[in-house]
Amino acid sequence: MATVSDIGLSAAINVSMAVAFLLVFAFLRLQPINDRVYFPKWYLRGMRDSPVSSGAAVQKVVNLNMRSYLKFLSWMPAALKMPEDELINHAGLDSAVYLRIYLTGIKIFVPISILASLVLFPVNWTNDTLDSMKVVHSKIDKLSISNIPYGSNRFVTHLVMAYAVTFWTCYVLFREYEIITTMRLRFLASEKRRPDQFTVLVRNIPPDPDESISELVEHFFLVNHPDHYLRHQVVYNANKLADLVEKKKKLQNWLDYYQLKYERNPSKRPTTKEADERQKIMKDPQSAVPAAFVSFRSRWGAAVCAQTQQTSNPTVWITEWAPEPRDVYWNNLSVPFVSLTVRRLIVAVAFFFLNFFYVIPIAFVQSLASLEGIEKALPFLKPLIKIDVIKSFIQGFLPGIALKVFLILLPTILMFMSKFEGLISQSSLERRSASKYYIFLFFNVFLGSIVTGSALDQLKAYIHQSANEIPRTIGVAIPMRATFFITYVMVDGWTGVAGEILRLRALIIFHLKNFFLVKTEKDREEAMDPGSICFDWCEPRIQLYFLLGLVYAVVTPLLLPFILVFFGLAYVVYRHQIINVYNQQYESGAQFWPSVHGRIIIALIVSQLLLIGLLSTKGFEETTPVLLVLPVLTFWFYKYCKNRFEPAFVRNPLQEAMRKDTLERAREPTFDLKAYLANAYLHPVFKGGEEEDNMSISEDVGMEEVIVPTKRQSRRNTPAQSKYEGSDTLSLPETVHER
Amino acid sequence: MATVSDIGLSAAINVSMAVAFLLVFAFLRLQPINDRVYFPKWYLRGMRDSPVSSGAAVQKVVNLNMRSYLKFLSWMPAALKMPEDELINHAGLDSAVYLRIYLTGIKIFVPISILASLVLFPVNWTNDTLDSMKVVHSKIDKLSISNIPYGSNRFVTHLVMAYAVTFWTCYVLFREYEIITTMRLRFLASEKRRPDQFTVLVRNIPPDPDESISELVEHFFLVNHPDHYLRHQVVYNANKLADLVEKKKKLQNWLDYYQLKYERNPSKRPTTKEADERQKIMKDPQSAVPAAFVSFRSRWGAAVCAQTQQTSNPTVWITEWAPEPRDVYWNNLSVPFVSLTVRRLIVAVAFFFLNFFYVIPIAFVQSLASLEGIEKALPFLKPLIKIDVIKSFIQGFLPGIALKVFLILLPTILMFMSKFEGLISQSSLERRSASKYYIFLFFNVFLGSIVTGSALDQLKAYIHQSANEIPRTIGVAIPMRATFFITYVMVDGWTGVAGEILRLRALIIFHLKNFFLVKTEKDREEAMDPGSICFDWCEPRIQLYFLLGLVYAVVTPLLLPFILVFFGLAYVVYRHQIINVYNQQYESGAQFWPSVHGRIIIALIVSQLLLIGLLSTKGFEETTPVLLVLPVLTFWFYKYCKNRFEPAFVRNPLQEAMRKDTLERAREPTFDLKAYLANAYLHPVFKGGEEEDNMSISEDVGMEEVIVPTKRQSRRNTPAQSKYEGSDTLSLPETVHER
Repeated sequence: MATVSDIGLSAAINVSMAVAFLLVFAFLRLQPINDRVYFPKWYLRGMRDSPVSSGAAVQKVVNLNMRSYLKFLSWMPAALKMPEDELINHAGLDSAVYLRIYLTGIKIFVPISILASLVLFPVNWTNDTLDSMKVVHSKIDKLSISNIPYGSNRFVTHLVMAYAVTFWTCYVLFREYEIITTMRLRFLASEKRRPDQFTVLVRNIPPDPDESISELVEHFFLVNHPDHYLRHQVVYNANKLADLVEKKKKLQNWLDYYQLKYERNPSKRPTTKEADERQKIMKDPQSAVPAAFVSFRSRWGAAVCAQTQQTSNPTVWITEWAPEPRDVYWNNLSVPFVSLTVRRLIVAVAFFFLNFFYVIPIAFVQSLASLEGIEKALPFLKPLIKIDVIKSFIQGFLPGIALKVFLILLPTILMFMSKFEGLISQSSLERRSASKYYIFLFFNVFLGSIVTGSALDQLKAYIHQSANEIPRTIGVAIPMRATFFITYVMVDGWTGVAGEILRLRALIIFHLKNFFLVKTEKDREEAMDPGSICFDWCEPRIQLYFLLGLVYAVVTPLLLPFILVFFGLAYVVYRHQIINVYNQQYESGAQFWPSVHGRIIIALIVSQLLLIGLLSTKGFEETTPVLLVLPVLTFWFYKYCKNRFEPAFVRNPLQEAMRKDTLERAREPTFDLKAYLANAYLHPVFKGGEEEDNMSISEDVGMEEVIVPTKRQSRRNTPAQSKYEGSDTLSLPETVHER
Repeated sequence: MATVSDIGLSAAINVSMAVAFLLVFAFLRLQPINDRVYFPKWYLRGMRDSPVSSGAAVQKVVNLNMRSYLKFLSWMPAALKMPEDELINHAGLDSAVYLRIYLTGIKIFVPISILASLVLFPVNWTNDTLDSMKVVHSKIDKLSISNIPYGSNRFVTHLVMAYAVTFWTCYVLFREYEIITTMRLRFLASEKRRPDQFTVLVRNIPPDPDESISELVEHFFLVNHPDHYLRHQVVYNANKLADLVEKKKKLQNWLDYYQLKYERNPSKRPTTKEADERQKIMKDPQSAVPAAFVSFRSRWGAAVCAQTQQTSNPTVWITEWAPEPRDVYWNNLSVPFVSLTVRRLIVAVAFFFLNFFYVIPIAFVQSLASLEGIEKALPFLKPLIKIDVIKSFIQGFLPGIALKVFLILLPTILMFMSKFEGLISQSSLERRSASKYYIFLFFNVFLGSIVTGSALDQLKAYIHQSANEIPRTIGVAIPMRATFFITYVMVDGWTGVAGEILRLRALIIFHLKNFFLVKTEKDREEAMDPGSICFDWCEPRIQLYFLLGLVYAVVTPLLLPFILVFFGLAYVVYRHQIINVYNQQYESGAQFWPSVHGRIIIALIVSQLLLIGLLSTKGFEETTPVLLVLPVLTFWFYKYCKNRFEPAFVRNPLQEAMRKDTLERAREPTFDLKAYLANAYLHPVFKGGEEEDNMSISEDVGMEEVIVPTKRQSRRNTPAQSKYEGSDTLSLPETVHER
């Protein structure tokens, strides 16, 4: 068991590593040569010129202004300064609400930490159970619930604390849900016109022998929504074309390169091929999939169509609100309904096995990666293996690598599973992957670390234990694992987050590309990899901290300050990244919040059940009914919030739609909506001309909403200057986006 | 353990009782004096005159036509003859689909019985495990799975049978769901105009300081559904008025009586009081509850409004399809949204305690009802108790009565709970009560009989057993309880159903009323109590037979023929009752089928899990994974059916609505819809004039849909004559309902 000095040492190491990362970052970000690594967002928004284009030659590469080094933490207040409304305009609602997850963590755990240290520390400390039991223990354990003697009345304090934690957490969650719902509604109601407001996605259009899909859609909606139907866009199966476009893009790049180096060289063949394929797809009725984007004259008409059932057979003419054009996952638009439920079953079974049996293939790979395994499988490598260095490498390193590779690949595997399920938008894919990843982390990291066994062993144990035995076994082990989790929080949370801001991978790749590959200015633009919030694997990791915090709040409150530091640091770091680096690929309007909320509720209920289990082993069983009230109430709270807030995230109120329609009709009575919507939902590969921007037009269409009139400007060292900041006059011309 | 002769005796008793009931029924129904007891449906439909009004005096009371007694089972083919379409016209879709529950039972269990007796009987019989073990056993047990030796390969047969049962059951369920969905859609699409097709119920209208609820509703819908809104009807809190009307009705009755006996006696006071109250409510804005029935110009408009969210706050302006006027449960229309979730929580907790802890209050009452209890509580009764007869009565009878009274009151208690939950239609109340009653029966009758202990003891056992131990404990006990359940089926199923057709209670009450109370012809009309299908407590009892059949299909297939007899007999009896007796109070269009389907699926999954438990004690654990596939597949089948069919029971396709709107507009372009809808959703007490028919007008409005043009006529002895029956010419004038 770790002692105070162990924890202290670990803390010292991690803190110094985190500080080192931050220092390096502070240095690197000031170098003009790294500008595109640390401020890509500003380049993408067109508010920052290339630093290479002005000033002295040396100054293009390194920053010689010594004064700027003195304020090496200046990015922190800068990151915090931008007000939330501006942040929403700058980076979208998704990013702003994503940050609120960290904020929620801070709001939940600050009062709990204070209360716990005021109440629980003295109650736990002033016992001598651990001393008298003469078990090996540390000072830390004396602060935990383990130090309370069997059957003591002092457990009442913990019981009351459990109530306090539950009510406070629910209160914060309720307030946050309320705020975020308002933010979402305000965001949706903001007056910009967007194609998806008028558009509904129709799937499973039943085949008709006499009419093409396009005619069928037109007739159906002219009959059933006569006053509202405007136009539609059939979806084509363009996977082959997309491949060709991709291929052409690569060749085009080489062409540019050679054009610079040598003379003109007409290797344009793929372009013509591509044009042929494009024509073929557009004309071939076979390549139209039974899905279409149908647009309406008004938001009201679209809202009605998206929320209603069209025909008596609920499996055909399925309508749903169209995702943002950028957000559409085109490949899944043609998956038929029957196959959807089959796919869902397959993925459920596959995920069950992945979650509980993933140890088996890894053990197999590990056995192959052993000395004997390699000797057997690849006998010709035998002499090589005899070399000592290689031998020790294989023995010490390979088995670990198999697991590591699996863990690195896991988000990709989960995303593949979600794609196979047939979801039709990027955002829903990410949300689905996130829940899978959370389940994986819950069983394999959280429970796996507590009861120390693979999920498979656990599964066996759970099946063979009674329902009230399971929380007891886990509950008993919880206080003993506190020091382990403290170390985990420091390594994964503190150092990990500090490493995130350094963007080491992006930095290296950018400079490698810059050095070897970049031939044109366009290439340099493309070498810049801003990245984005990876909701599918970042959010579940935050949830792990919520889980740890809530579980240990009553048991070993000493863990809380460590978690608080994580939330605080991560909030600042990610706020900075969102402002300066990340470039979100789509905007879902914070549609992920219901699942974030749901998972915190799960963590709360788990913490309550484990506390019941723990207390029942401490001679305090009679309080079980008192504690059982908590999960019932929490679950009810969840249901209540679901009814109260979730509809705002899935349905579209008619009143809002009508209000905006009326307003718009009064303001722009002659607006040509049909032309506006003409190409909004065309498959990206059909868009644009010959140049490679045919891939990015779909993004432009969406960008329109994100780029809004702003007074923001960007300069070298203060990227986060806000309009509230005052009279600095070194401003670029304003970027006003006309409509 | 019961032997074959025990079962034989029990069967003989029950069969003779059932036959006796049928004989008595066959005799009683032919007596004219009982005509209103056994054919009330025909009176209510106005197709049968009072038998007292014609013929000789003696013939009014007893039937002297000896020939009619010879064909004493003639009602059975008559009950079966009416085609389903005609049955729907005659008694409504609810009744017709209710009968299909029995039909589903027959369809599921006939092939399973045949297969099981061909395959399982030989396999089970040709062992001598029970003989060699020298345990007490009967011939019946030799036919069950108990006779297979430990670890025998013959269990593969049972495993294959489990697959066959699952697939066949799912196939039948799928077909039935398909048929019933079609029936429902055809029923809804049938061309009659009904007020609820155009009407939406709006609840939780937010208060407005400047406008009354009526104005608010009008403005809101004029703004948000400008092209479709037609009119609305505010809901008044008329509970007080309803009491007055009820009181007046009673007094009026006495008045009529005295008017006949003595002279005119002006005790009309309550009528004026009632008129005052009526005025007061209509004028007082306080008595309007925040709910309204909003009607639209077209079915399309109503379908749109019912399926969409109106405002950004999902807890106000909640819209849903209005129930049929007869089906509305007026008292719950004003329950606010917040209170709804709280009420649901309270009922869930209360039902949990009712289900698992109902034994405690009953044990308390029983202890009071014992000799010592009475002596203590009511010492003055001491001398009385000393009398032997009373003593033995108290000892032998009272404790049982406490339980019996509870069980008789149970449906009422459950209905009260459902009402408290705030559901707004009679049909949904019945459905909710049915699911509660099913849970109760499952734990207290099914599991209670198998593991023989109160639900409370079971609860304790389940908590302390591991997840794979529970099906094992129950599974092992199943074969041993087969003979008990065979007896149960005969007593509750056979004799119970035969008793149902006798209508002993209704018969006695009618004659008592007729003798003592009936003063006017109207009174005689009212003394007639047709009753109705009590979905809330009849359906869960049918489900118990599905559960028994599926659980024993593989284990002791001998049970199946007994269940088949039940389903067959019940089908005929209830078909007869529905044609001749029951008068449904509302029509929900078979909305209950999804829950019937769901409960059969639950029974199937329970049977699979128990089989896994049973086989794992028979040295056949290795097959557990093979069997575990079944519940997974069954659950997936449930999800698939839910997606595929359930929307047809809760949502309203726009295509159908549009089709009917167009058709109707073409046929009756000048129809005054506003006038048609004027009073449809007025609270029943506001309707009509001074006479007591103000209570029944609401029914008339609804009846309109049920009374349809028909060629059916009714005569004394062949009430179920069908138009397909041919040339019998003793017909009454046709009842054509004009529109």
